[in-house]
This record gives sequence, structure tokens and C-alpha cells, in this order.
Amino acid sequence: MTEGWERTPDRLAATAGAMLAALRERRPLVQCLTNHVVVGLTANVLLALGAAPAMVDIPREAGAFAAAADGVLVNLGTPSAERREAMREAAAGAERAGTPWVLDPVAIGALPVRTALAGELLAHRPAAVRGNASEVLALAGGGPGGRGVDATASAEAARAAAVGLARGRAGVVAVSGPEDLVTDGRTTIRVANGDPMLTRITGGGCALGAVVAAALAVRGEMPALDAVAAAHAIYGVAAERAARGAAGPGSFAVGLVDALAGLSPGDAAADARMRAEAAVG
Amino acid sequence: MTEGWERTPDRLAATAGAMLAALRERRPLVQCLTNHVVVGLTANVLLALGAAPAMVDIPREAGAFAAAADGVLVNLGTPSAERREAMREAAAGAERAGTPWVLDPVAIGALPVRTALAGELLAHRPAAVRGNASEVLALAGGGPGGRGVDATASAEAARAAAVGLARGRAGVVAVSGPEDLVTDGRTTIRVANGDPMLTRITGGGCALGAVVAAALAVRGEMPALDAVAAAHAIYGVAAERAARGAAGPGSFAVGLVDALAGLSPGDAAADARMRAEAAVG
Amino acid sequence: MTEGWERTPDRLAATAGAMLAALRERRPLVQCLTNHVVVGLTANVLLALGAAPAMVDIPREAGAFAAAADGVLVNLGTPSAERREAMREAAAGAERAGTPWVLDPVAIGALPVRTALAGELLAHRPAAVRGNASEVLALAGGGPGGRGVDATASAEAARAAAVGLARGRAGVVAVSGPEDLVTDGRTTIRVANGDPMLTRITGGGCALGAVVAAALAVRGEMPALDAVAAAHAIYGVAAERAARGAAGPGSFAVGLVDALAGLSPGDAAADARMRAEAAVG
Repeated sequence: MTEGWERTPDRLAATAGAMLAALRERRPLVQCLTNHVVVGLTANVLLALGAAPAMVDIPREAGAFAAAADGVLVNLGTPSAERREAMREAAAGAERAGTPWVLDPVAIGALPVRTALAGELLAHRPAAVRGNASEVLALAGGGPGGRGVDATASAEAARAAAVGLARGRAGVVAVSGPEDLVTDGRTTIRVANGDPMLTRITGGGCALGAVVAAALAVRGEMPALDAVAAAHAIYGVAAERAARGAAGPGSFAVGLVDALAGLSPGDAAADARMRAEAAVG
Repeated sequence: MTEGWERTPDRLAATAGAMLAALRERRPLVQCLTNHVVVGLTANVLLALGAAPAMVDIPREAGAFAAAADGVLVNLGTPSAERREAMREAAAGAERAGTPWVLDPVAIGALPVRTALAGELLAHRPAAVRGNASEVLALAGGGPGGRGVDATASAEAARAAAVGLARGRAGVVAVSGPEDLVTDGRTTIRVANGDPMLTRITGGGCALGAVVAAALAVRGEMPALDAVAAAHAIYGVAAERAARGAAGPGSFAVGLVDALAGLSPGDAAADARMRAEAAVG
Repeated sequence: MTEGWERTPDRLAATAGAMLAALRERRPLVQCLTNHVVVGLTANVLLALGAAPAMVDIPREAGAFAAAADGVLVNLGTPSAERREAMREAAAGAERAGTPWVLDPVAIGALPVRTALAGELLAHRPAAVRGNASEVLALAGGGPGGRGVDATASAEAARAAAVGLARGRAGVVAVSGPEDLVTDGRTTIRVANGDPMLTRITGGGCALGAVVAAALAVRGEMPALDAVAAAHAIYGVAAERAARGAAGPGSFAVGLVDALAGLSPGDAAADARMRAEAAVG
């Protein structure tokens, strides 16, 4: 894909299929430093996609492992002192080794310890940031953050903040919402897949952060923007399938893992709903 | 409800419906400092009821958040040193701000670190205590506690201890068992809902503690006693529904979340089985 | 069973039935110090078998509890500093009291902190070690370990290492793989139960470590070798049943817990596929 490549909806949808095929074939090793609420779901989501999760999150192990892993997720939920230290190690190790890493700034803004940490980690240049609108606004310095992991701001409200962050040091920035917004500061891809059920289970967004790390790990020549957007589309398509068969959020969470495992690249490409536009800051 | 209000079974059952309606409408923000075994289920149970869980459990974040949250759960399972410090902060922050908070004294009695902590936290005047009979006996100083989270004493054996605690500083005291016993030291409400399956999954009791915190957060003019009892009835009615469709404890846990999400206030009121009596210490 | 007892396939299969009956009847209290990724599944697996899980994993509680518990699991995933200290206490407490304990050396080899800890804990003489081939090779000093919890070496490659470890200080050694290999250094039992789905969920191996601890807790006069092999067969038979009804790894994990809870001793004996051979180091 060259700079002049035109991102039509059909071509974008095809990247979702290509990405899923790459995940299944290359089985990336994805290190996750994430919160204890969602860690089990996150590992199962990665396994369902063919990736190999490794929850290496203690000091003196996290940094070296990040250099060897194919991708790294740093998620700021329940950030104990020891895990914060491991996160610093992992982000630095990933940066040094060129391992793509993803920052998920859970609930920053109102909560001081993680807000300070997020700013510090940003200096290690994540390949991508994924959060809800409140979190992206807070990361950009433009908002007070949300109530816990609740998105109290809309994705649209965070658009300018996301573009500004992406033009700065934060790589690709993805804002989850009814329609996801993914931007590299020049182009914005909107992903209309997903289901409200994702907001009714714990970890619906956090696990997506791990999928983004896996996608960046295997993107090859695919631009990071397209890889992150494809991760959102794959995850959203699986969520749609899971929601159709669910009796409630409990069975939805189970079905999401089943759907991710059963999804074919053709399915992902057929159901992906993405469109590109020039990024407006 | 005035002091002279008579708690007939029908009126009590109606409080279960009113409470579920209040949860769905007001969506309380419930902070949970809880153990890493059950934290995912706890978050999903709160989400299923319409509440917003926030697992803010580190020092320098927990105290201020407790002042802003609508309700707080402090559950003593797997109490690492850092989480113990956060629990002290949260209990103090909740007390200062008037946020109702719930103490779940998991496995105290035999285990010295958490037993000492439970005594210390009690000084911050929880709005409610929820535990099994062994734990309530241990908290009242009247028993050696159980084997882990196993209830080795019957709810009836803990009755006097519960009433004594409630008349002291522990607010409403709830003892889980085949029939739950909820008391404010003057009146005791017995809740006959629930299913033995709740004892065959991890977190069956711990998640109920979070529901109690959510109920206290939205009780308005409803007495705390009735709010805590209503939380037990709602949870127990959902458990009964889940047990009917379960092939075993794995599918029961999934079905419990589905049932909580699908339960209507009318269902809760129709199926609640509660009766009141004078508390005998 | 005497030394001269001949381990025919039929007699071995019968031990799986006898072991499941013992678990259901004696309900052992199993203390688990395990990682935060799989801790919920591990507790539910133990409950499904009739055991009582107790996740007591903090210093000043773990050691005394290990002396009182019927069995102990020490699993080295996500080993925070505080949990490492608790693991030292638990292993020492179990050794002193004669409580059988199981070491699961998750991802040792490449990761320095846990590799050093595994060597240290081995001095407290576990009744059994359970791991994949990479981990057993690393524990024996014969390999670099795997990528996270991935088994990159085959069970056969770890055979000599397992026998050598078992002849040393590590008690019974079990190597998980397409066919599990369980050895006491003199005899090796191969267990052909299980399903590849176990490798597609997080905790499939880790939860088995807890089942091994439960089996050692109730083995009575059954040799430790047979008890560990029986635990593998019971778990593997349940996995086969769960796999038949699963739509993917999400529903497999749910079904595994259901199957463990529903399995009868007769079912376990009928479906167990085990054979014994002289151990070759």
C-alpha cells in the first residue's frame, strides 16, 4: 500500500480478512500487562485468534520479554506499584527493540496515579493508543476523564484530541464508541462494526487492546492505521455474531470467544464496515 | 416507610421489584476492592444489573474515588499489602463522604492478616456486612472462622452474632445460607431465594456483596435493612432462574449473569420470598 | 497396591474411578497460590470435583494455612514479589506439615525471576511437578524453556528430564502433551485422554495442577504416581466430553466445568486410557 493508495470501503474490508489470515498463520506472541479484572478474557480472546498470550507483568521479567515478544499491551487498569514498574520496563524494552506496543489508558483523568503513568509511558512512543472518548480526551490533556471505564464523552467529541495525539507522539489512536474512530493524524478510518453488548461485559474494550497489539505484530507492509482498524473490524464482526446468539451478557462473553475462534478471513472481509476520510484536527 | 410500617411478605417482595427498578434507572457507580479470584464475575454481575463497576483498588486512588462513588465494596479475599492499604483508604474515604460501603470479611477467623484488618475496617462503620455464618461469627468474636470461604457454621448459629454486630457498629448484617438472614438489630428479614449452585461456583457470595453495595447506593428513602434484603432476593431469584437452565456449575455462572440482565422488576417482586420477624439477639 | 502390583490398562483405568469417588467423598481443602489469569477457572474446576478451593496467597497467612490444608498448589505464573514470598512460606509450611504440594513451573527457563524461584522451591520437595515439556526440561536444567506457556518441546523430548527429576527431589513428574507422561522415576504412566481444546483456553494446564494437588490430598494408600495419573485421566475425560458439545473455546471452558461436575466415577473409569511402562531415564 503506497501513500497514494485509495482506501475505498471494499479495500478496507479486505484488510480485515488479510489481517485475520495473518494472525492465524503467524500466531504472534503477545505480552499483556493488564488488569486483574479482564486478564482471563484477554488471554482467551488472543488464543481464539491464534495468537499466543503471555501475561508477563513483573519487574525484571517484563522488559526483556517485551524485546522478544511480537507485540505488547500495556493496560492501566488496577495498576499496582509493582505492575507499574513492570509497565515502565516493558514500554522501554519494547521501544528499544522496536516491538510494537499498545497503550490502553483505562480510566485516566480522574485517577491520579495512572494519569501520571500514562503521560510517562507516552514518552516511549506506543505504536497505538486505544481507549474510549473520555480516556483519549484525558490523555490529550483536554478532559477530566470518565467515571471509571465508562465513556462519558462521545467518540466524536474526542475526534480532535485523537488526531492531535496521533500527530504528536502517540502513533495510531483509536477511540471506541458506537462507531469506532481510528486515526494516524492524516487519515481517519471509521469502523461501524460491534455491538452494544460489548459495553455490558467487563473487558469488552480491554481485550480489544490486545487484539490491536496482535495486529500490529503481524502487519508486515500493511500501514499501522489499517492494521489497527482491521483489528477493530474483526473484533466487531465477531461481537455481532456473538450478540445474535446470546441470551444475555454472560452468554455473549462466551460466544464472543467462540465467534473469534470460528471467524474466517472471508467472513471478516464480508462483514467489515469501514470507511476512510481525511483526518480533521 | 416509617418505623411503624408493617413488613408483610407481599410488601417485602415489592421492595425487591422497586430496588431492581432503581438499579436499572440510576446505574450506580460501585467501586470494588475485591479478590482476584472473583473480580471478573463481580464486575459482570454489576453490569448485568445496570450498575457501573469500577475496580479502583490501589493506594492514592482508592480513597478519593470512594468519596465520589455511589457505593463501595471491600472484600477481604486475597488481601495483598497494597490492596489492604487501599482498603483502609477506601473505607475512610467512604466514611468521610457518607458513601455507603459494604464489608465482606472473606475467610476471617483462621487467617490472621485479614482478621486484624476486618477489625480495623469495622471502625469506619460499614453500611452493611455480608458473609457466611463462620465469617459473621468470627467478626463478632464468637467463632474461629471457617475453612477458607466454606461456611462450616449454619446461618442460624450466627443469628445472635449478626444481631449483636448490627446493634454495634456494623450497620445491617447479612448472613448467607440456605436461607439468608438480614438484620439491622431490631428486625430480621429472612430471604428464602437462591440455589445451592451458588455455593458450587467461585464468587457466588462475593458478587452478592457488590449487589448489596449497589442497592445501598440507590436506596433513597428505603431503609438500609430492606435494601440489603432486596439485593439478596433479586440475586437469589436470578440464581433460581439460572439453575433451572444449567447443565452444571459452568453454565450456571454464565446463566446467572444472563438472568440478572434479563430480570424485570415484576419478575423480582413475583418470585421474592421474604419474611420479617423481630430480631432476637 | 504393593510394589509388585501389575499396572494393566484396566487396573489403571479403575484408579481414575476410585480417585474421582475419593474426591467427591472427602472434599479436600486445596490451597492455591496461582496466577491471576487462571485463578477463577482453577477455583471452579476444584469446586466441580467436590474439592474446596482456598486461594490463600499472602505472606503471614500462606504458611500456616499450608500446614492445615489437605493439598497445596504453587503455580509460578504472574509471580509478584509478595506472592513469591507467600509461595516460599507455603512450600516450607507444607513440607514441615507433610501436606502434599504441587509445583507448576509456568514459563520458567526464559524468565529469570520465576526460574530462580522454581529452583529454590524444589528444595522443599514437592509431591509432584506438573508442566509442559519446555518447563520440565528447564526445571531439569536441560532446556531454555518455552515462549510463555507455549509448549515448544514435545512431551517425548522431556521424557528423560522428567525421569531424572523424579529420581531426584521432585517427586512425581507429569509432562502435559497430546499424550501426558507421568513418572515416579521407576514407572511411567502414559495418559491418552484430553483434547486439543485444552491448549486453546487459558488455564487448561494450570487448572490441572490444582486437580493433581486435590488427588494427592485424598490418595490414601494409592501410590502418588497412580494418583497423579488418575488426576490427568479424570481431567482429560471431562475435556473430551466438553469438546464434543463445544461451539468453540469459550463454550469449551464452560463445558469443562460442567463435565467435571457431572462426571461419575464409572464414567471416568470407562473412558480413561492409560498404560504403564518401565521408566527409561
